Amino acid sequence: MPAYTENITLETEGELHIIDITGRVQKVVERSSISDGMVLVFVPGSTGAITTVEYEPGLLVDLPKALERLFPRGIRYEHHERWHDGNGHSHVRASFLKPDMCIPITDGHLELGTWQQIVFVELDVRPRNRKIVVKAVGE
Amino acid sequence: MPAYTENITLETEGELHIIDITGRVQKVVERSSISDGMVLVFVPGSTGAITTVEYEPGLLVDLPKALERLFPRGIRYEHHERWHDGNGHSHVRASFLKPDMCIPITDGHLELGTWQQIVFVELDVRPRNRKIVVKAVGE
Amino acid sequence: MPAYTENITLETEGELHIIDITGRVQKVVERSSISDGMVLVFVPGSTGAITTVEYEPGLLVDLPKALERLFPRGIRYEHHERWHDGNGHSHVRASFLKPDMCIPITDGHLELGTWQQIVFVELDVRPRNRKIVVKAVGE
Repeated sequence: MPAYTENITLETEGELHIIDITGRVQKVVERSSISDGMVLVFVPGSTGAITTVEYEPGLLVDLPKALERLFPRGIRYEHHERWHDGNGHSHVRASFLKPDMCIPITDGHLELGTWQQIVFVELDVRPRNRKIVVKAVGE
Repeated sequence: MPAYTENITLETEGELHIIDITGRVQKVVERSSISDGMVLVFVPGSTGAITTVEYEPGLLVDLPKALERLFPRGIRYEHHERWHDGNGHSHVRASFLKPDMCIPITDGHLELGTWQQIVFVELDVRPRNRKIVVKAVGE
Repeated sequence: MPAYTENITLETEGELHIIDITGRVQKVVERSSISDGMVLVFVPGSTGAITTVEYEPGLLVDLPKALERLFPRGIRYEHHERWHDGNGHSHVRASFLKPDMCIPITDGHLELGTWQQIVFVELDVRPRNRKIVVKAVGE
């Protein structure tokens, strides 16, 4: 079976909600029967991102603070001037963090570090229903 | 057919020219006959990047402004001191944005959001001819 | 052979040690006998990153300076307040730069630019032994 796909659905609580999806991705990999290959985790949409982080309460503060420091909400965004949806900074943040990540699968398991979790980062300014595509390829 | 490749060629107009390549990537996927898998979009070169963005005129201003704010042209770069090509900031920006992106293919289509386009970002200081590698794998 | 894996081991010299692993990744690709596909380079761990850069002495100064400018060591990190390991900035930097990169393989070779090298970036505050997973898929 060279490719196997499932979607993960999430209800986010609002801006900068960071959700650990490691367990759900691992479950998809197990159901895929792919023991050697890689899994692509991807969010369709331009105001969300996938990355990894040590999922502990301190970094769930530090990561949003860094996003706010580098891409402040309060400065002028042309996107907002045109569309008035107030999320110009969300789009810019998403283009930097990017919506994709690939993780190796070996012996049917994700090859992550012990303190490394796969997360979805909600960058939009309101709670959203999100679909995350989890696609495993390999043998 | 487990792997299929085409190159996209671009003539960029200069620094921070952002080009929507979604339609061309989708066409490659269609010609690949791969209906389930993923496509890697990659720029060989150290002064360009691939990401996604809602391709509308506001963000085509906001994204370059963020790059200039975070990695200003006018500060000292050791790369420039050595090579005098004036593009130290281009290289640093490219290492942060990265030259690769993977997008899932399902039923022969890219699984992108409605307002999410794949873009090449020219980070070098002059117009360039660019080759983008589009490689689909799957079944 | 649809998937082939080897690990690269590195002994890093400390924070912001940037190591060119291009030659070793290419060797893995050659041993894989995969001539058409892609290779995933991934660091298991939450304080390291994979990217590409022109590997020359100037940028080995410029890239660390940008990381320090954007994510300073000396500001408050909640991660540090809780764990006292002094590497809150390392984790935040790693979530931005990300631990994964995919590079196309064509005719058995990595499709990189001439001045583009694959690097591991040590973001932790001390020398570490690192395992990098190199996984090729294709035909």
